[in-house]
Amino acid sequence: MARLLRAATWGLFPWRGYCSRGTQEELSKGFVEALKAVVGPPHVSTAAAVRAQHGQDESLHRCQPPDAVVWPQNVDQVSQVAAMCYSQGVPIIPFGTGTGVEGGVCAMQGGVCINLTHMDRILELNAEDFSVVVEPGVTRKTLNTYLRDSGLWFPVDPGADASLCGMAATGASGTNAVRYGTMKDNVLNLEVVLPDGRLLHTAGRGRHFRKSAAGYNLTGLFVGSEGTLGLITATTLRLHPLPEDTVAATCAFPSVQAAVDSTVHILQAAVPVARIEFLDDVMMDACNRHSKLNCPVAPTLFLEFHGSGQALVEQVQQAEEIAQNNGASHFSWAKEPEARSQLWAARHNAWYAMLALRPGSKGYSTDVCVPISRLPEIVVQTKEDLKASGLTGAIVGHVGDGNFHCLLVANPDDAEELHRVKVFAEQLGRRALALHGTCTGEHGIGLGKRQLLQEEVGTVGIETMRQLKATLDPRGLMNPGKVL
Amino acid sequence: MARLLRAATWGLFPWRGYCSRGTQEELSKGFVEALKAVVGPPHVSTAAAVRAQHGQDESLHRCQPPDAVVWPQNVDQVSQVAAMCYSQGVPIIPFGTGTGVEGGVCAMQGGVCINLTHMDRILELNAEDFSVVVEPGVTRKTLNTYLRDSGLWFPVDPGADASLCGMAATGASGTNAVRYGTMKDNVLNLEVVLPDGRLLHTAGRGRHFRKSAAGYNLTGLFVGSEGTLGLITATTLRLHPLPEDTVAATCAFPSVQAAVDSTVHILQAAVPVARIEFLDDVMMDACNRHSKLNCPVAPTLFLEFHGSGQALVEQVQQAEEIAQNNGASHFSWAKEPEARSQLWAARHNAWYAMLALRPGSKGYSTDVCVPISRLPEIVVQTKEDLKASGLTGAIVGHVGDGNFHCLLVANPDDAEELHRVKVFAEQLGRRALALHGTCTGEHGIGLGKRQLLQEEVGTVGIETMRQLKATLDPRGLMNPGKVL
Repeated sequence: MARLLRAATWGLFPWRGYCSRGTQEELSKGFVEALKAVVGPPHVSTAAAVRAQHGQDESLHRCQPPDAVVWPQNVDQVSQVAAMCYSQGVPIIPFGTGTGVEGGVCAMQGGVCINLTHMDRILELNAEDFSVVVEPGVTRKTLNTYLRDSGLWFPVDPGADASLCGMAATGASGTNAVRYGTMKDNVLNLEVVLPDGRLLHTAGRGRHFRKSAAGYNLTGLFVGSEGTLGLITATTLRLHPLPEDTVAATCAFPSVQAAVDSTVHILQAAVPVARIEFLDDVMMDACNRHSKLNCPVAPTLFLEFHGSGQALVEQVQQAEEIAQNNGASHFSWAKEPEARSQLWAARHNAWYAMLALRPGSKGYSTDVCVPISRLPEIVVQTKEDLKASGLTGAIVGHVGDGNFHCLLVANPDDAEELHRVKVFAEQLGRRALALHGTCTGEHGIGLGKRQLLQEEVGTVGIETMRQLKATLDPRGLMNPGKVL
Repeated sequence: MARLLRAATWGLFPWRGYCSRGTQEELSKGFVEALKAVVGPPHVSTAAAVRAQHGQDESLHRCQPPDAVVWPQNVDQVSQVAAMCYSQGVPIIPFGTGTGVEGGVCAMQGGVCINLTHMDRILELNAEDFSVVVEPGVTRKTLNTYLRDSGLWFPVDPGADASLCGMAATGASGTNAVRYGTMKDNVLNLEVVLPDGRLLHTAGRGRHFRKSAAGYNLTGLFVGSEGTLGLITATTLRLHPLPEDTVAATCAFPSVQAAVDSTVHILQAAVPVARIEFLDDVMMDACNRHSKLNCPVAPTLFLEFHGSGQALVEQVQQAEEIAQNNGASHFSWAKEPEARSQLWAARHNAWYAMLALRPGSKGYSTDVCVPISRLPEIVVQTKEDLKASGLTGAIVGHVGDGNFHCLLVANPDDAEELHRVKVFAEQLGRRALALHGTCTGEHGIGLGKRQLLQEEVGTVGIETMRQLKATLDPRGLMNPGKVL
């Protein structure tokens, strides 16, 4: 029922390259029984509602339910399930928290969804080595709560409380990337179940060194592979020392150019800013309405600095001076957690503020990344495109990396409006490509950006990726229809 | 002649897995003429001396000369030469500055060595985007000289003035990695000629964004692939703002444990140290003799801090306090370039100081990397191994990453001593593996560590690497006999 409802709701979102199985081929009863024999009967479901829940993420992509959902309790069971599926030609779709935004969990050809959230142990903390090993059920917030008294934290923060293994699979990043890097920079090792069930440790079993020049970088290949090469069953992460103090700041600018110029100057001055976020005037207006704030309706930077004592004061002074040289006004800063939270309220509630603009609508977030010098022109162009498209949208950016999101709200029952969303998102992707950028800085390709990926990496690039996929997943059963 | 001399000299170094072609199959005269037609007659050589020069790097590995050396003038010529070799089944060996230390350029099966140093342009500087594109003939020192007035620099520093594309191929790092990362973290895009001559841009042609989640991380796959998957013909690098000020410091410790504990505490305190190098007592003694210094003959840390004004003072104070809590003595620091240079003299001259211990000997540097908490025990064990082996060696480490080198000197004409070097290096690699480390932090696998790589990544790891190699180089012609 839920599945039918979803299909009716999102079925009209006509992403290019959408690949339908036609009629759903059900799994045989014997195969379902065999799955139950491996993971235990309570940990297999073929109920329509459960399947529908697992056939979609937080995007507007049409729900595509798997034929069955299994919850393995350990890596051996994952191996066995994968091997069974592989030998029978059944597609395999890994599932974490379902917080992706490019349709990565849609079961395009049915198959078995492997929900990994029951494997939720923090396996090993090596505080002195700044590393930790987590299973797929561990989310970033859970990890940081666990680390609270260790003096360490894991800074990669995509917003959602996502599974850390899922974040590795997507190559996630977020607000702290400008200082601490993305998942690519913070994954030290992965335990991966290959499509045929074999177990791979990308950097060798149990290893957690800081750097290596030993052989091909398998860790780097699986980070960001979006479940198309194997199932990540444990991730070894690099941890960072908790900053002694944190200062948050905000300021408004007369133009997008002035805000981005400030960002470039702050980076050029080697101010080790931890977060530097941009919200456009539309976004600020929405935040004012939603959170009853009184912020200037202008391009605004939200900054955060991590450090200690005098160094922190110096960072804030340098940033303020640079911002003021670029015409900034309303520079405010806060040190205590509550005051910081209040200052950053607009940024934290941006998504809900957008949704509140049109009650009953659904949100969609698309992302691109360009060289930062090109950011002003693409933001200005995008605002014009938004106007021309008649869509409701605003811009929020991890501007220190040249990465920004366009948050759109649309009526999920309005096929014509959904079509405009699609056209707009593709146009944005192409604008980024034309400026030497990428069609996605952190959301991944999933279903929606496969055509853009081809345009981005060219014929030889896409051929090379196809070769890698065919090598590691010769039967094409791992999360089929995604990325390529 | 030179070739025969080298063969006689190093032929006794019996690395395990050494793969001989048996009799040298010469290239046909027609093939050599065809090479000349592509790159121009002056840019092809089959002279024995030239071939011998190109058949070895700075290691003790036996010289294995290629059949011919070519100097392409541009990427089209590289493509044409590769395609010719590929179609004729001729091995291809990329050559940069020849400063590798694991035998990466030895022509194990003969073939054509492609010396890329005539392609030496800095193609594109995007100062505002903190990126630059360089050809293989550009070394790190040349780049930093070029950047001098831009306020930017490229910090990865393996010691040698290596080709930046070669550094990408090896996955090099060095003293600044603790703060600025390794090549893995600083390569944004690669132009690669695939074995069959096709041109791949790993992140898409002309792109230089800071981050991306678009498809498989091809850049990461080629960084550190040691010329076994393709020829890197251009690298897009991430640049960093020049630090406003630099302070160097040194201090001596009562034990290895105390020096390493200080390192861990400095990192835990989030002091953004730029370099933190360890020299053991043997190394310090050799440096005193060679450079006529009067440093304490004790485990010593060499530190460097980058920053501005008050923040820098705070960094140095914090580090000094931590060191003193761990029993450090002789804490000295210097700010002006000349004084810094003098303070770090021992570190800068370590290699020559070792060679001077036994005039006429050759040096060999092997490297491993372990989780930093395991560093004291492996350094202590290694010092015992050195003693037991009767070899002359000392330890120099990029201790902030858990990465260290053992610098050995040996008589190249003494087969028995060379054998002990080999046994010692393997033992060191296995000690690192037993402590969850890697057999090489930055030198690569090359010829010498292929067996250790297998032990490090296990059966499925090595099978996966073999599959990748077979996919991208199905005829096994790219730098054959290396890594796998």
